[in-house]
Amino acid sequence: LAFVEHIRERLGPGPPGEVWAGDDAAVLPSPGGPVLLTADTLVEGVHFDLSLSGVDDLGWKALAVSVSDIAAMGGRPLHALVTVTVPRGRGGDLEQLYDGLEAAARAFACPVVGGDLTSGPHLSVTVAVMGTAPKPVLRSQAKPDDALLVTGPLGGGAAGLRLLRGGAVTFDPADLRQPEARAALAHRRPEPRVAEGDAARRAGASAMIDLSDGLALDLRRLADASGVGVVVDQVPLGPAASLDEALTGGDDYELLFAVPDARRAHQRFEEAGLSPPFVIGRCTNDPGERRLGAGPLPEGGWEHTW
Amino acid sequence: LAFVEHIRERLGPGPPGEVWAGDDAAVLPSPGGPVLLTADTLVEGVHFDLSLSGVDDLGWKALAVSVSDIAAMGGRPLHALVTVTVPRGRGGDLEQLYDGLEAAARAFACPVVGGDLTSGPHLSVTVAVMGTAPKPVLRSQAKPDDALLVTGPLGGGAAGLRLLRGGAVTFDPADLRQPEARAALAHRRPEPRVAEGDAARRAGASAMIDLSDGLALDLRRLADASGVGVVVDQVPLGPAASLDEALTGGDDYELLFAVPDARRAHQRFEEAGLSPPFVIGRCTNDPGERRLGAGPLPEGGWEHTW
Repeated sequence: LAFVEHIRERLGPGPPGEVWAGDDAAVLPSPGGPVLLTADTLVEGVHFDLSLSGVDDLGWKALAVSVSDIAAMGGRPLHALVTVTVPRGRGGDLEQLYDGLEAAARAFACPVVGGDLTSGPHLSVTVAVMGTAPKPVLRSQAKPDDALLVTGPLGGGAAGLRLLRGGAVTFDPADLRQPEARAALAHRRPEPRVAEGDAARRAGASAMIDLSDGLALDLRRLADASGVGVVVDQVPLGPAASLDEALTGGDDYELLFAVPDARRAHQRFEEAGLSPPFVIGRCTNDPGERRLGAGPLPEGGWEHTW
Repeated sequence: LAFVEHIRERLGPGPPGEVWAGDDAAVLPSPGGPVLLTADTLVEGVHFDLSLSGVDDLGWKALAVSVSDIAAMGGRPLHALVTVTVPRGRGGDLEQLYDGLEAAARAFACPVVGGDLTSGPHLSVTVAVMGTAPKPVLRSQAKPDDALLVTGPLGGGAAGLRLLRGGAVTFDPADLRQPEARAALAHRRPEPRVAEGDAARRAGASAMIDLSDGLALDLRRLADASGVGVVVDQVPLGPAASLDEALTGGDDYELLFAVPDARRAHQRFEEAGLSPPFVIGRCTNDPGERRLGAGPLPEGGWEHTW
């Protein structure tokens, strides 16, 4: 993480009116409105395990995680570039990978317009997405007394990974009446919350972030960027998820946002035909406060080490 | 290559007025003028060997190859996203990598505005670049009798790689009076031809491509896309380069373009204060013709195998 922070500082925040490193996506003014840019890499053995999900799931997920960054700005995705590194002898994987990419591109209305294919020692996929938002929602503008909401229950992705790793699968992944199957699906085929991010923006969200690294860590980031305290008093749990998975498991693509008026957010979600968001807590005027119920917010989350 | 072609066909050419896969960069209309998007990945052991160039050179080159794709559309780069995969224990490489990236970003006026850092089994860098051009030059509009020009002598990059691989370095890489040193620099720190691409566009270039995979292969691509024949009657050789390196070595970032009036191209280059381009041949009306002097154009070039 120190490296990430350091690189961020090297790159700088950008000139006035632009956002460079440090938010879910970069924001760049253009005559047609703000352009959003983001890119993420998924690496075999680090971000995915092909004994637990298909290559098509990987394609879906690679696009989904970058689209989620656009959703977290209250934006909509426009176009994607995909670069793939594939080991020699595994070119056949590409067909399935693009099956998943294309399914996601259709689902998120974000066509893949180019990229690069290269050979290399292991499978890796990078997706860059360009998007737009009339007025992008940053991480940094939450205010004391804003309500904190999430767009859905948390921890499903981490629970799904745990269940799939459990080896003897005791559930039918195709039977989505079972919470275990829904958790496995949340891990394999996360759904970025584009419509929800848009509704949150319209509701006047002051700050927003996606929860890919877990609520505890991503809430800290939002609070740090905004200079506010945060108090969480409830956490909606995803299918088959433990509280720990909901707080620190990561691999969730729900959005966390701060908004002055939670009722207005509920209205906007309802008008858009979306499931209602969950109020999980509020922002406070003590910038050092990081509280979960009566105790401290846990420290953990998905972080790379070098 | 079959996979690349197949994926290209899967992605499709895009709706009218857009260019998706199949050119140096994607072209997307926007209220501020056409947006260009491109991305390339460099993988350790495939595209670079850190015993032959520095990690800072790698950073430079990663940005340069994507900027070159923008130059090949007659465009100018605007912003870059950089995603880096770095093995555990080698986080220290990141500092040097970003030294090279930042130097290139300044040199090409293309700031790095975001991206991703992740751990993984080997070092890999992906750069996505957004650019713009008033009227992007595609590969596909060359016409019979158009002159074929290149923006500089070829084969220097491949020669540099050969000399560096030679082991016992018998030249001083810092003494750029020596052709060997200039070749090594062409391999380590290629210069994308942004100003040259712009001048070619202003001169009315009908088709353009960068020579990253070698003149023989990239000229075939331009000719195939345009449905014209091509005859090459001279090839300017870069420092220390053989004819074979100039034709099939790849790793050159000069531009190849077709233009109805070569004199006009020379004028535009002169007005822009650029070294004059080289006429290497012309397009013909026999779409199957691929000729070098009295013989056939060679088949080789930089291609991945899976």
